[in-house]
Amino acid sequence: MILSFYICFEKLTTMQGKKVSDSYTIFTEIVMPNDTNPMNNLMGGNLLKWMDIACGICGGKHANRIVVTAAVDNVSFTRPIKTGDIVTIHARITRAFTTSMEIFVDVYKENFRAAEKIKCNEAYYTFVALDDDGRPVEVPQLIPGNDEEQQKYVSALRRRELRLILAGRMKPADAKELKEIFLNREE
Amino acid sequence: MILSFYICFEKLTTMQGKKVSDSYTIFTEIVMPNDTNPMNNLMGGNLLKWMDIACGICGGKHANRIVVTAAVDNVSFTRPIKTGDIVTIHARITRAFTTSMEIFVDVYKENFRAAEKIKCNEAYYTFVALDDDGRPVEVPQLIPGNDEEQQKYVSALRRRELRLILAGRMKPADAKELKEIFLNREE
Amino acid sequence: MILSFYICFEKLTTMQGKKVSDSYTIFTEIVMPNDTNPMNNLMGGNLLKWMDIACGICGGKHANRIVVTAAVDNVSFTRPIKTGDIVTIHARITRAFTTSMEIFVDVYKENFRAAEKIKCNEAYYTFVALDDDGRPVEVPQLIPGNDEEQQKYVSALRRRELRLILAGRMKPADAKELKEIFLNREE
Amino acid sequence: MILSFYICFEKLTTMQGKKVSDSYTIFTEIVMPNDTNPMNNLMGGNLLKWMDIACGICGGKHANRIVVTAAVDNVSFTRPIKTGDIVTIHARITRAFTTSMEIFVDVYKENFRAAEKIKCNEAYYTFVALDDDGRPVEVPQLIPGNDEEQQKYVSALRRRELRLILAGRMKPADAKELKEIFLNREE
Amino acid sequence: MILSFYICFEKLTTMQGKKVSDSYTIFTEIVMPNDTNPMNNLMGGNLLKWMDIACGICGGKHANRIVVTAAVDNVSFTRPIKTGDIVTIHARITRAFTTSMEIFVDVYKENFRAAEKIKCNEAYYTFVALDDDGRPVEVPQLIPGNDEEQQKYVSALRRRELRLILAGRMKPADAKELKEIFLNREE
Amino acid sequence: MILSFYICFEKLTTMQGKKVSDSYTIFTEIVMPNDTNPMNNLMGGNLLKWMDIACGICGGKHANRIVVTAAVDNVSFTRPIKTGDIVTIHARITRAFTTSMEIFVDVYKENFRAAEKIKCNEAYYTFVALDDDGRPVEVPQLIPGNDEEQQKYVSALRRRELRLILAGRMKPADAKELKEIFLNREE
Repeated sequence: MILSFYICFEKLTTMQGKKVSDSYTIFTEIVMPNDTNPMNNLMGGNLLKWMDIACGICGGKHANRIVVTAAVDNVSFTRPIKTGDIVTIHARITRAFTTSMEIFVDVYKENFRAAEKIKCNEAYYTFVALDDDGRPVEVPQLIPGNDEEQQKYVSALRRRELRLILAGRMKPADAKELKEIFLNREE
Repeated sequence: MILSFYICFEKLTTMQGKKVSDSYTIFTEIVMPNDTNPMNNLMGGNLLKWMDIACGICGGKHANRIVVTAAVDNVSFTRPIKTGDIVTIHARITRAFTTSMEIFVDVYKENFRAAEKIKCNEAYYTFVALDDDGRPVEVPQLIPGNDEEQQKYVSALRRRELRLILAGRMKPADAKELKEIFLNREE
Repeated sequence: MILSFYICFEKLTTMQGKKVSDSYTIFTEIVMPNDTNPMNNLMGGNLLKWMDIACGICGGKHANRIVVTAAVDNVSFTRPIKTGDIVTIHARITRAFTTSMEIFVDVYKENFRAAEKIKCNEAYYTFVALDDDGRPVEVPQLIPGNDEEQQKYVSALRRRELRLILAGRMKPADAKELKEIFLNREE
Repeated sequence: MILSFYICFEKLTTMQGKKVSDSYTIFTEIVMPNDTNPMNNLMGGNLLKWMDIACGICGGKHANRIVVTAAVDNVSFTRPIKTGDIVTIHARITRAFTTSMEIFVDVYKENFRAAEKIKCNEAYYTFVALDDDGRPVEVPQLIPGNDEEQQKYVSALRRRELRLILAGRMKPADAKELKEIFLNREE
Repeated sequence: MILSFYICFEKLTTMQGKKVSDSYTIFTEIVMPNDTNPMNNLMGGNLLKWMDIACGICGGKHANRIVVTAAVDNVSFTRPIKTGDIVTIHARITRAFTTSMEIFVDVYKENFRAAEKIKCNEAYYTFVALDDDGRPVEVPQLIPGNDEEQQKYVSALRRRELRLILAGRMKPADAKELKEIFLNREE
Repeated sequence: MILSFYICFEKLTTMQGKKVSDSYTIFTEIVMPNDTNPMNNLMGGNLLKWMDIACGICGGKHANRIVVTAAVDNVSFTRPIKTGDIVTIHARITRAFTTSMEIFVDVYKENFRAAEKIKCNEAYYTFVALDDDGRPVEVPQLIPGNDEEQQKYVSALRRRELRLILAGRMKPADAKELKEIFLNREE
């Protein structure tokens, strides 16, 4: 009886929330010739891969578990990134659900000559934590801090509904939160 | 005057529509140790990269131009793919717009031992064709053939609206086609 | 007695022949800067590697086993393939022997701008199927279909003799089939 | 007139023969996880690629030009090479023709634990030297030294005939040297 | 005269000092199977490469020029880093000389399961900035901030002397600053 | 008793000294586009990695054990190596200590056009041999042969002292051998 109390206590401890900064991840790459298409632009697929790795590291730090990609939301590519540019990717958790985490990533490019840093892309990835047998396992909750973190924490529900609808696992009629997206959209 | 007639004629010729089969692309990979996470599952980012390459080849064949990734729609990862599995990616154009093309990709995994081929993922990528100075350039229209091609050709408008809304370039209120997605969703 | 009958029956079942189309494999690559020599031509060694992978996938699909390269026949390189070209490799089994398979591969290059596909190379690879302890294991026989498949099925014996002679494992005097090669040579 | 004399003289100078040792090349690799198949054996295609690079370096040293692979003769794979093994490849020129060179390569494997070095493979590659416009260009002749070098120098004619026949560029009836291969075969 | 004044002024402007934080670089990698030796430890050479890239990015940000590695000081490897570990590298400039910069890098490893971050290595790299013709070019001076930055700024002279002696470009007798190293050594 | 005699005897046998030539290693690479910075110079970090691999192979051959990098001494980079250059690395053991080995490596570059080979770099790496549980294990002693080998064997003590001081594991006052470095320095 005492034992089960301790176990319960331990679980509460490890599962008590963590902060965004506990798993904030910065990932840096130089664009090399093999990363580009014949116009010397970074291939979109390479950026998707780098964002996935950055998010995977971030999710792993939050969950202290092996994590696997469950989804990536719509990503747009509007600014070309050139050979020799420095790509800096910032990944941070926006919300933890039972066994999954939504992670937001934004991408900056820098050129050695120009001293300015330009934002190129952003995306939301979802990761699931796995135990040693490969089964989904509970993750610590996220305690959002400042206003931006609060905002993304709240809007995560809406993005999740859209993900479930697009994956064919929720009927649009049941998407309570999503209806807002057709009224006002932040970020 | 005669000259401009010929130019016009030539343009019509090159720009007359092409079929899905003209650019259908099959892409095959074996999952190697470096492609996987510590659970020996193919990392999601690698699959996103491979799908991007397959779609880029498909788009390049359709446009006969250098093409660059403009967007990838929501992708879900539900079935793990293991080290040693064969990944086969089929990419085919679903609709051409003025300078962009929507390309649909589906992903199958096969294990040497098991004789069966299992579908794992699907995604829509959008590519833009560029001229030699890197400016968007017109692409041939797509002439859809069988029923499935027709269906994807029609629903492409709806997916495009969602993409524009998610990229913040269209107001939800203006999305005429998208409203259907909340009523009935195919594929 | 009944038991051994069943075993025998099972073996016949799994070992009954398969068709060429059951393991036909298409493999696609874009030639990237690191794949080329200083003249921007795809290095021969990279093409040999890609052909080997395509054949290995094909052989694995036919045998439903791990397969390893046993031999590659003479390969000529006559047409340069450039950075940015698309390389498409088609691999198909031509004949199965007891534990080995001969696989024919042909290689096409395509340039985004030019709409034509040019054949560059062809080769015969031989693979051996292995059981879990790494010992050669029987593979299903091949049932050749159309005329081309029949022709390659027959000529496989001749190529096999040449392989054995070149590997020093057969005396030229014993090469009954090979003598034809000095009289008339198809493909 | 004097001028043309000098040009002629210069050509003779640069084109006077070189020795095998002038371009002898040793190439070493450790077999890494990504180089192997699921049985932890080095994939044949990777070895073909490494042999090609070693031969290309050797040919480049002999010709002092960019060189490209023209052919690889039949290669057999009989001994598995394992993850962690050291692969040592020795490449040496056996004969120079007008614009091409035949290069012989042998492959050894070593395991850290075992102090012995085992020969695994051998192959003949043919390379062609190119000028700056990509056209075949004359290479220095080879002056064979010891008995082994003499022997390979002589038998190179026979191997060349087989190569031409297999590439469909010589009729078997014209292959004077090759007939010997059906009588007695060295190496 | 006025013109030369402006030029001079512009140079002063661009060459006025920069802070450590202006080029601080964080670089993150996951240790993949191909990065390790047969004991699943990250190979030292890979870490040297990653540190070099992180320092090169840092130096490039400070100089706003292409930079090349001029030297790396003695590096010790005492803590093994395992497959699957996250490696985080922090690179920051410690002092700028006329055309070169000393950059300090420290390396941390993290395991998903363990929530702790362990320091593994540190090193000093030296980079030189190059103009478009590949000639060394002046870099902005560094304005050290806090105590640690001040300390490394001062001790940089001593490390530079040791570097010059080890490269055979300074006689030990002339190494005024270095003599301190034999008396008291910080960090 | 007899048994322990045999064990002792076996150990003496395996531990009796080995020569430099027993583990001499030659490592060759062509500089590919992805190995270079935007000035087409080989990145320093790649050379550090290649030298590490060459030394690791050399150390593994000497110890007949898995070996791991323990240290690399100061390395200077003074001569740029260009895309397409051939890099040849010669690694040889200079002295064995109880469980560690000092390995000297020098680096040459060659260009296909120029027939000359230019020395670019040199470095000393230290490796430690490990048993199957990852613990340091005794290595065979080195028997130096010619004058150069003798000289490096002797000066190894001095370099080792510097390494220990720089790693903070020896006080400068205790460095008897190192004092010589301030008087006369060979190589």
